[in-house]
Amino acid sequence: MVGNKLTGADLKHVTIQDAFWGKYIDLVDEVILPFQWDLINDRVEGAEKSYCIRNFRIAAGQETGEHKGMVFQDTDAAKWLEAVACSLNKKRNESLERAADEAIDLIAAAQCEDGYLNTYYTITGNKRWSDLFEGHELYTAGHMIEAAVAYFEATGKRKFLDVMCKFADHLCLVFGPEEGKIHGYPGHPEVELALVKLYRVTENRNYLWLADYFVRTRGERPCYFLNEDCIRNGNYIFPEFKDFDLDYNQSHMLLKEQETAEGHCVRAVYLYSAMADLAYEYQDGALTSQCETLWENIVNKRMYITGSIGSAAYGERFTADYDLPNDTNYSESCATVGLAMFSNRMFHLTRDGKYMDVVEKALYNTLLAGIAMDGTHFFYVNPLEVVPEVAKKNPTYRHIKTIRQLWFGVACCPPNIARTLASLGNYIYASDESTIYVNLFIRSRMECQFSGIGISVSQECNFPENGTVTLSVSPEKPGSQFTLAVRIPSYCKGAVLKINGKEETGTLEKGYLYLKRIWEMDDTVVVELNVPFRYVRSNPRVRHNIGKVSLMKGPVVYCLEEADNGKYLSGAVIDTSVEPQEEYDHQLLRGTLCARLQGSRIDYEKAGDSLYGEEKPVYKKSELKAIPYFCWNNRGEGEMTVWMREKE
Amino acid sequence: MVGNKLTGADLKHVTIQDAFWGKYIDLVDEVILPFQWDLINDRVEGAEKSYCIRNFRIAAGQETGEHKGMVFQDTDAAKWLEAVACSLNKKRNESLERAADEAIDLIAAAQCEDGYLNTYYTITGNKRWSDLFEGHELYTAGHMIEAAVAYFEATGKRKFLDVMCKFADHLCLVFGPEEGKIHGYPGHPEVELALVKLYRVTENRNYLWLADYFVRTRGERPCYFLNEDCIRNGNYIFPEFKDFDLDYNQSHMLLKEQETAEGHCVRAVYLYSAMADLAYEYQDGALTSQCETLWENIVNKRMYITGSIGSAAYGERFTADYDLPNDTNYSESCATVGLAMFSNRMFHLTRDGKYMDVVEKALYNTLLAGIAMDGTHFFYVNPLEVVPEVAKKNPTYRHIKTIRQLWFGVACCPPNIARTLASLGNYIYASDESTIYVNLFIRSRMECQFSGIGISVSQECNFPENGTVTLSVSPEKPGSQFTLAVRIPSYCKGAVLKINGKEETGTLEKGYLYLKRIWEMDDTVVVELNVPFRYVRSNPRVRHNIGKVSLMKGPVVYCLEEADNGKYLSGAVIDTSVEPQEEYDHQLLRGTLCARLQGSRIDYEKAGDSLYGEEKPVYKKSELKAIPYFCWNNRGEGEMTVWMREKE
Repeated sequence: MVGNKLTGADLKHVTIQDAFWGKYIDLVDEVILPFQWDLINDRVEGAEKSYCIRNFRIAAGQETGEHKGMVFQDTDAAKWLEAVACSLNKKRNESLERAADEAIDLIAAAQCEDGYLNTYYTITGNKRWSDLFEGHELYTAGHMIEAAVAYFEATGKRKFLDVMCKFADHLCLVFGPEEGKIHGYPGHPEVELALVKLYRVTENRNYLWLADYFVRTRGERPCYFLNEDCIRNGNYIFPEFKDFDLDYNQSHMLLKEQETAEGHCVRAVYLYSAMADLAYEYQDGALTSQCETLWENIVNKRMYITGSIGSAAYGERFTADYDLPNDTNYSESCATVGLAMFSNRMFHLTRDGKYMDVVEKALYNTLLAGIAMDGTHFFYVNPLEVVPEVAKKNPTYRHIKTIRQLWFGVACCPPNIARTLASLGNYIYASDESTIYVNLFIRSRMECQFSGIGISVSQECNFPENGTVTLSVSPEKPGSQFTLAVRIPSYCKGAVLKINGKEETGTLEKGYLYLKRIWEMDDTVVVELNVPFRYVRSNPRVRHNIGKVSLMKGPVVYCLEEADNGKYLSGAVIDTSVEPQEEYDHQLLRGTLCARLQGSRIDYEKAGDSLYGEEKPVYKKSELKAIPYFCWNNRGEGEMTVWMREKE
Repeated sequence: MVGNKLTGADLKHVTIQDAFWGKYIDLVDEVILPFQWDLINDRVEGAEKSYCIRNFRIAAGQETGEHKGMVFQDTDAAKWLEAVACSLNKKRNESLERAADEAIDLIAAAQCEDGYLNTYYTITGNKRWSDLFEGHELYTAGHMIEAAVAYFEATGKRKFLDVMCKFADHLCLVFGPEEGKIHGYPGHPEVELALVKLYRVTENRNYLWLADYFVRTRGERPCYFLNEDCIRNGNYIFPEFKDFDLDYNQSHMLLKEQETAEGHCVRAVYLYSAMADLAYEYQDGALTSQCETLWENIVNKRMYITGSIGSAAYGERFTADYDLPNDTNYSESCATVGLAMFSNRMFHLTRDGKYMDVVEKALYNTLLAGIAMDGTHFFYVNPLEVVPEVAKKNPTYRHIKTIRQLWFGVACCPPNIARTLASLGNYIYASDESTIYVNLFIRSRMECQFSGIGISVSQECNFPENGTVTLSVSPEKPGSQFTLAVRIPSYCKGAVLKINGKEETGTLEKGYLYLKRIWEMDDTVVVELNVPFRYVRSNPRVRHNIGKVSLMKGPVVYCLEEADNGKYLSGAVIDTSVEPQEEYDHQLLRGTLCARLQGSRIDYEKAGDSLYGEEKPVYKKSELKAIPYFCWNNRGEGEMTVWMREKE
């Protein structure tokens, strides 16, 4: 543990100029956020009604009616506000800010006298905190708090923050070990990491303490939830919850005893993120090492190559080590966001590049695959293999959508993708008192201060299409000493470093090249990362991928799609002894680097009609085209596969 | 169509002496039927209560209380009675017959004045016939009728038959096209084939007509079910039904327009069996050809190599052509029984051996795999690939049991397996006015009469371990002319025929070798069927089996099991250029012919810890042992796979 803490870059001080990422980020600012505002105000024709803002108006006494939507419908407003805050933090936008202020006024009006805030329980009059297992009150509080903190950081306006501090103060009175307080914790973790954020802006240690209480007591025996009415009497809000074991929400044992990632993936990674936050705040080595254990279990045994998690749809959950089916999996976009959050926190704790490898993998693959270029269609579930005719007729695949869906009812994923894109700067750079970390290779500029001296770092790159990253480092005052740490990804086959044209070595430690020197104005650091196409195989314990390969370039996973290769992709075999050839596709997503592969395919015309027989199929030589996974399903419905059979 | 109708052998006239099948048949008589009687009388400790007989006592006014169990709980008594009847038909058993008579007296007492019989509706007072979609009244009636017919055939006692005729007369008054009658049909087909059976013993054409009405009107627009309360008001007995489309129960279009097998498999094959019965009774060529179309769709596109059907657990249903996942499938034992019933009827209609090939496949593989040698543990679901650790932790597999289960609540499969084993004679032989068909090679003796002259045929064989089948043909009166038709299975690689030691040819037609001649006392026919081990591959449109093989000998499918081969069966590759070696295992199921295969396996000790990397796995040479699929899971829980990767 170091005393000199590492933090992510302040979004105010990062400007992203990247053409590739810019396309997505502009979508958030220009399309997604205005669209979502209309959506939660029930103004989008053809979309399911949200009732979200209407619920707040009813709770505030400005309108009469019943609560509608899910018990956690309030979080749609919260996630929208958080994404708006991230967006405003980068760039002012008056109309968005006006809408946000309007929403915040309404939220404040819906708050109860004692600080409690939740439209479902306020409107229905149901007993508060009576169903922590399913009621999502603390989960909802968490998203509200995250939004308030982000909005304060972006605008400096205190109103929302004050509302949420009042709520958090109320939570501190309601929950805790003292007699008369509730000794429970949330069914869906989220408030824990939010309370840490609230502590960081307010420095009120009660909030940190409450987060720690929730994490520390989770899983104590007898389990708190088993005494709640919903479980004792079978009065479930979500009847499907009744079949879930306690590991579904990570309350099957004390967290400090948990060594494998279990249960509902989003809950798990939100909870682990809070654990990493607590380890960071308390500089707790034991908690850090337990976070590492859980992270290693995910990344080395339970994560898809695309950076997604959740091998089963029922329970949207982790299953068993090395159980990674490619077609029946859940791989929710939100879980990938949570995995990136957890990994980024682990990087801040440990400065180990392996964590940023996973952040990068999650962002470049599953996160981007979740969103269509129109900004209004999304994947919640992200399979690695789809055959649409089968997915539509076999109900084992009923969670799979064969085309991206218009933002709908339970709107967790789209705003989660939006807030992640809007806060990308936070992942690209980090710094402590004397070191700037360059984590991701995205054309951008960041500014920070060391001992009162302003420093700027600009990146020029077109990664991973090209491995050359040019960094311009400029201290306000020439001759300043500080350290630049450039990530060398684990997949990189060698890197050459030049400073002002002269080859240098630097010090490589846990995936970072440390350059400690006296910097002059406009020093130029060029890092040549060798990132050719490469064939990647699974550990053979992953039974679904035996005999198969995937293609990657840098962090980007490629796939075969029907649009390029026709049907029956599982009948293709790749000859990996032939190097993949680069092929630039100017149409696909306005320009994308693809790959041409050599191999063979089953000749289905010669396949015959009988279902079982002694003949072997006939193969014919064939070329195949692979495209980045994040591009898939942008040319209509069709087959797709990430894992391809490999010629022996 | 021939006027000279073919029928299955009367069970009274078949004696099975086969050691292999005898083991199973004895289980039915000695263990299963007494056990089930205790079960439906709630006398088995540790088993879920059935309430079945108790419901009849309450309905009969002999006891007070509420109806308990499923709406179709009565069928447990019906299926037990039918299996008892099949058993008694072969061999008298006083204690079983006494118990059956006791049950029949109770059933008669529970019948309403007007003939109606159903304990659920009688006890609850719910409106009769108000929920054909889910209420299972006609389904229950069907099983009752089947049992009554079987009991009459076995014992000659009319009581049960008369009770069911009274009920069937009532059905004829309630259902039909006339005004005031219900224009509906059963949600779960079954009564149709039962009414045909009842017609055959009673010659009352009303019953045949009603069966035809149900089949003919099924799927008429607007669909009858959509006007029922359960669908209109969402008052579902089974809330999970609400997500099912009409194809779930084959009412999505008129049956005569249906060209693919859709929906719940058991419903489908029961319905198609009734269609085949009607085609047979009316000698209806169009209906016959439609049955052929549906049968071909199943067998050539939707059937597992083990003779099971049902590619999805949700809906227990057919999905899409060539969609045959090996681990997430349902493959219910009952559906295999239904497929055998349908195929046997198609054989009687067409005399085409391809239908008996499927009967044989179903019986030798999935039917037998369903039952443990203790007679009290069963599989309802029959996957072709299981990894227990994963099946227990991944809820996608929550329908899969990794060990056979004690007969439980919805007890459809065990009695269905029992009645099939008890009526095996019906599948082994068939005859018309002048031909005896030998369909299955099972050591046995059958008797029949041609023009008043008694004929007996005895089989000596140990098939498919050995391909030699010796038939002794004896007419009571020497010098009788008739035809013996011996099935030559499609998998047979040549057959040599000798009569009284002299090689002959016979006439081969649609899978049968016809021997029309004048027979003397003790004529001996020897058929040498060449049935070596063979490697079988799927049509490459079955994406789950690409690059894989299975091993068969005759109709028997083999598999690899952990008990012989250790874990990680998916890491094995078979060298199919080496012939499998016979290996007799004296322990396994009291003696079983196994096979030793050559190949290689991934060396997991050298596999490393990382989940994704560029290295290829290291293989080592290996021998593997394959056992018949019907033997699996008799040596504790473990991995199993039917399809094995094949060396290129």
